[in-house]
Amino acid sequence: MTLTAPETAKATKIVLGRNQYGKAEVRLVKITRDTARHQIEDLSITSQLHGDFTAAHTDGDNAAVVATDTQKNTVYSFARDGVGTLEGFLARLGDHFTSDFDWVTGGRWAGQQYFWDRIEDHDHAFSANKSEIRTAILEIADGKKSIVAGIEGLTVLKSTGSEFHGFPRDQYTTLQETTDRILATDVTARWRYSADAIASGGIDFDAVYTSARRLLLGAFATTHSLALQQSMFQMGQAVLEAHPEIDEIRMSLPNNHHFLVDLAPFGQDNPNEVFFAADRPYGLIEAAIKRDGVPDTHPIWENSSGFC
Amino acid sequence: MTLTAPETAKATKIVLGRNQYGKAEVRLVKITRDTARHQIEDLSITSQLHGDFTAAHTDGDNAAVVATDTQKNTVYSFARDGVGTLEGFLARLGDHFTSDFDWVTGGRWAGQQYFWDRIEDHDHAFSANKSEIRTAILEIADGKKSIVAGIEGLTVLKSTGSEFHGFPRDQYTTLQETTDRILATDVTARWRYSADAIASGGIDFDAVYTSARRLLLGAFATTHSLALQQSMFQMGQAVLEAHPEIDEIRMSLPNNHHFLVDLAPFGQDNPNEVFFAADRPYGLIEAAIKRDGVPDTHPIWENSSGFC
Amino acid sequence: MTLTAPETAKATKIVLGRNQYGKAEVRLVKITRDTARHQIEDLSITSQLHGDFTAAHTDGDNAAVVATDTQKNTVYSFARDGVGTLEGFLARLGDHFTSDFDWVTGGRWAGQQYFWDRIEDHDHAFSANKSEIRTAILEIADGKKSIVAGIEGLTVLKSTGSEFHGFPRDQYTTLQETTDRILATDVTARWRYSADAIASGGIDFDAVYTSARRLLLGAFATTHSLALQQSMFQMGQAVLEAHPEIDEIRMSLPNNHHFLVDLAPFGQDNPNEVFFAADRPYGLIEAAIKRDGVPDTHPIWENSSGFC
Amino acid sequence: MTLTAPETAKATKIVLGRNQYGKAEVRLVKITRDTARHQIEDLSITSQLHGDFTAAHTDGDNAAVVATDTQKNTVYSFARDGVGTLEGFLARLGDHFTSDFDWVTGGRWAGQQYFWDRIEDHDHAFSANKSEIRTAILEIADGKKSIVAGIEGLTVLKSTGSEFHGFPRDQYTTLQETTDRILATDVTARWRYSADAIASGGIDFDAVYTSARRLLLGAFATTHSLALQQSMFQMGQAVLEAHPEIDEIRMSLPNNHHFLVDLAPFGQDNPNEVFFAADRPYGLIEAAIKRDGVPDTHPIWENSSGFC
Repeated sequence: MTLTAPETAKATKIVLGRNQYGKAEVRLVKITRDTARHQIEDLSITSQLHGDFTAAHTDGDNAAVVATDTQKNTVYSFARDGVGTLEGFLARLGDHFTSDFDWVTGGRWAGQQYFWDRIEDHDHAFSANKSEIRTAILEIADGKKSIVAGIEGLTVLKSTGSEFHGFPRDQYTTLQETTDRILATDVTARWRYSADAIASGGIDFDAVYTSARRLLLGAFATTHSLALQQSMFQMGQAVLEAHPEIDEIRMSLPNNHHFLVDLAPFGQDNPNEVFFAADRPYGLIEAAIKRDGVPDTHPIWENSSGFC
Repeated sequence: MTLTAPETAKATKIVLGRNQYGKAEVRLVKITRDTARHQIEDLSITSQLHGDFTAAHTDGDNAAVVATDTQKNTVYSFARDGVGTLEGFLARLGDHFTSDFDWVTGGRWAGQQYFWDRIEDHDHAFSANKSEIRTAILEIADGKKSIVAGIEGLTVLKSTGSEFHGFPRDQYTTLQETTDRILATDVTARWRYSADAIASGGIDFDAVYTSARRLLLGAFATTHSLALQQSMFQMGQAVLEAHPEIDEIRMSLPNNHHFLVDLAPFGQDNPNEVFFAADRPYGLIEAAIKRDGVPDTHPIWENSSGFC
Repeated sequence: MTLTAPETAKATKIVLGRNQYGKAEVRLVKITRDTARHQIEDLSITSQLHGDFTAAHTDGDNAAVVATDTQKNTVYSFARDGVGTLEGFLARLGDHFTSDFDWVTGGRWAGQQYFWDRIEDHDHAFSANKSEIRTAILEIADGKKSIVAGIEGLTVLKSTGSEFHGFPRDQYTTLQETTDRILATDVTARWRYSADAIASGGIDFDAVYTSARRLLLGAFATTHSLALQQSMFQMGQAVLEAHPEIDEIRMSLPNNHHFLVDLAPFGQDNPNEVFFAADRPYGLIEAAIKRDGVPDTHPIWENSSGFC
Repeated sequence: MTLTAPETAKATKIVLGRNQYGKAEVRLVKITRDTARHQIEDLSITSQLHGDFTAAHTDGDNAAVVATDTQKNTVYSFARDGVGTLEGFLARLGDHFTSDFDWVTGGRWAGQQYFWDRIEDHDHAFSANKSEIRTAILEIADGKKSIVAGIEGLTVLKSTGSEFHGFPRDQYTTLQETTDRILATDVTARWRYSADAIASGGIDFDAVYTSARRLLLGAFATTHSLALQQSMFQMGQAVLEAHPEIDEIRMSLPNNHHFLVDLAPFGQDNPNEVFFAADRPYGLIEAAIKRDGVPDTHPIWENSSGFC
């Protein structure tokens, strides 16, 4: 074929819908060295702007397009004055872009924070703690902030205290019931702060993170589980009960299957001791747990894990 | 501390919100061997059910929980009768689960399809074509089907014919304007079929995929780009113009930066010949391109790339 | 505990053994734009130097340490004059470092090359062909060059023409024999050129790559396989027979298991049509195929896939 | 072209060289539940056999090919009696295969071990500790065992106490000298036990792992570094000094570059506080540190990180 520019005869008018753009995964390491005992903050920041960017799309007119490189520079420049809480840092970025550029009416700022431990309490030597990642998303629309915070990559396992039975059986059901199985998952949890709590300015984001992490782990550990759904609900409920500043929490929990190996051909029993840890497929259990009356949808969820 | 079950004193009632569960990434390879010239279909299927699964969450009562293992078995059993189009296969699964189980009111079925080429036209020997992945999502709600199809992992590059200038400058702007740069991206595109086209039953999903892929590539190649936004809009417009059965298309395009290396310290010029291909950060340009009048939101987008 | 510097009382003297250092994964994209029809070369280059770098290790004396940043700069500067064959580019780098720095007695230069196809024969628009990666390693020692070239990430599958039976059975053997199975693997092959061929300077590296790729695919396709080992040997033999300039070829082939799904519980047969493609574990079949008389070991193999 | 079987006219005889085969990445989770306080062991085991497998390669004769599936089964069956140390488990496997099959003259058994922490000291609830992986390789040849143990994925960083200067400058050198930089790396270390220590049977593999890990971290932290090479040597030396049972230790340390961001355009200084953490390229520093007199090569190193 001959490549030509797309034809222009149109059945209907084609327009730009929702859109956003920015710089993703700005890798920022901030060392605070006011004293000999250094502090380290390690983040990946994504900044995306909302507003009327139609001309860039239709005409390649960039007059309104704050360069993604500028957004990156701003992240680094702002870090010079300290990072602080992940949510607070995103808020500083969001306030800046929505106030300094008239046409930027809102945006989405998201971050991951990685953890480091001191090597035997050393002042400036650290080892990475890769067991979990802290996350946050800020969305500004109509002059209001929505904030979702969370945790991901937190892998947990119970070696007993998990059953699965009583499920319906049809012609495609071959799974046996069990009263003792391994229950394992990688926790992705995101909690949305209430508009009132955000407006009050009084949320202690670090304290909530620490508490939510502990509550999620504790509820996973102590729930005698008849279904991963039940564990999940207990985990979410524990967070909501302890934190009135949170309206709802969403979780996505893979059921990381551990299959009991059949050792009978080798003349051995296997009383829940030897397991094959499978990669795929896996169960996937997802839910929102919320206070009664909280709407089922909120704009930030539409844009929490990507655009399309 | 002593671990105890979560406290039960509640400020407000806590309830289950939206939820879904199922089996993710069921890896299915189907060989059709009716003749000596075999056909191969290679897919990863995710099945998730919607309905009232409250009892499982609150009481561990699984009476309504069609096991994720059963969902996996159903995928394999259905494949015995052939796969066909990815969208059609998802529809068969969705129809089954929503008709055979009264309490399953809907769900989300998603798939990736991987491509294989014949090794020099051999009848039963193939090599994997990893240059792109075909995707589809089916959501059933209120007895109606919504379908989004797409492509991902399609990496493209223009070595000229791309400019970027005219953007606003503030105190954080250091980027130089350019009239000739490399433009490179990994195309993730998803198009949503109109309700009418779905209801008509007349969509040729394979043909649309082939056509959309070609149109996306062609528009990327032929657009003299003043912004990645402009290329993206042209790409989406080309698909919508050619395919009245599509209501809107969404794209997420990283700007895979290729930085011109400064060779001046070595006594060399660099007329856009030698580039450093950076990993992170990257620009990220996202938009919906749609027919005029199509609403900005549609339920399937909320759940297109994960739950939380 | 209190951290102190390591104790210095030694039972035996501790010395530096073999060592190398350099810059890894220098991502280089070279556009040749002498005419309107651009050429693209896309590589990842690793440069590591050998020599006496003891003082850096024992005393932090960097007088001999050509900075890894300098090595990176050299890669980009050399690319300004064109890349050419991957092996030839590595040789230019190796010659430079071993001639310009007296104390650099040798080194290891390795590269990956990524492929791009033109979008419908466009002059400057390309799409990435991700189906395979070309590799090369050059090692210089004692003034002599050793060269290994190869391919990796080439995934192939036969839907019939593969058997596996006649294997020994012990108390741990449960595998059933089969006369028809899917055979699938990801080809990693590396061939070592003979010292004579390298010294002659007459190797057409690009032509050998193209030929070896075709021969590997052809032998995989046409061998009626009684074992993946047999297919592998045929593949290697085909390359050695056609290319006298190659002394030996080594391959590492995972056996990507495709398990026949048992559909009997659903009242269906499964005549080798529906398979579960497993992730792990996988068989792993590895061998050197060589001309009679070629030694079992060669220094470049010790350092072909990493140092430790 | 027409595909035909490879031609059989040969310039020289082509033979099978070194080879090995087996099952890779057998994912094993072992729960020990003798008491209510469960223990968890989480491993990935690879078993590869050496011997005369020529007939399988040349004729597809599998009479000597202990199926890789059998090797997998053996791993699970042996785990029923407990895992114990990683090295000890590999030794049990190696002894079995080399004694029960006359023609299996040796092999390579390798493993990764993943760590779990108890959730607040719970009896049967755990969270994954992903900050490091323990590794081991056993090779049996000529009736003798060689053992390499190690650690990988251990990421460390010093926020000061690292300099880099005094390196040679040529026409490609643009790097500035520094007396204060971030030093960060991902530690891959492997130590080879002496033949005498292995023969003695008295190695406490778990204790050495714990000690080596601590010594590596301690030396990294306390060495005022003039080069990553110097830190590496100190790390290796610390392990060798403390552990006479180890003959040599090899390390592969990427220099994970953290580039100081230039904030001057924004009117700010940057006294080593704000850094860009780069992905690629990275420095790569590799060395063997050994007791004086230990040979530069050992067969197990040739096969420590793959075959080709």
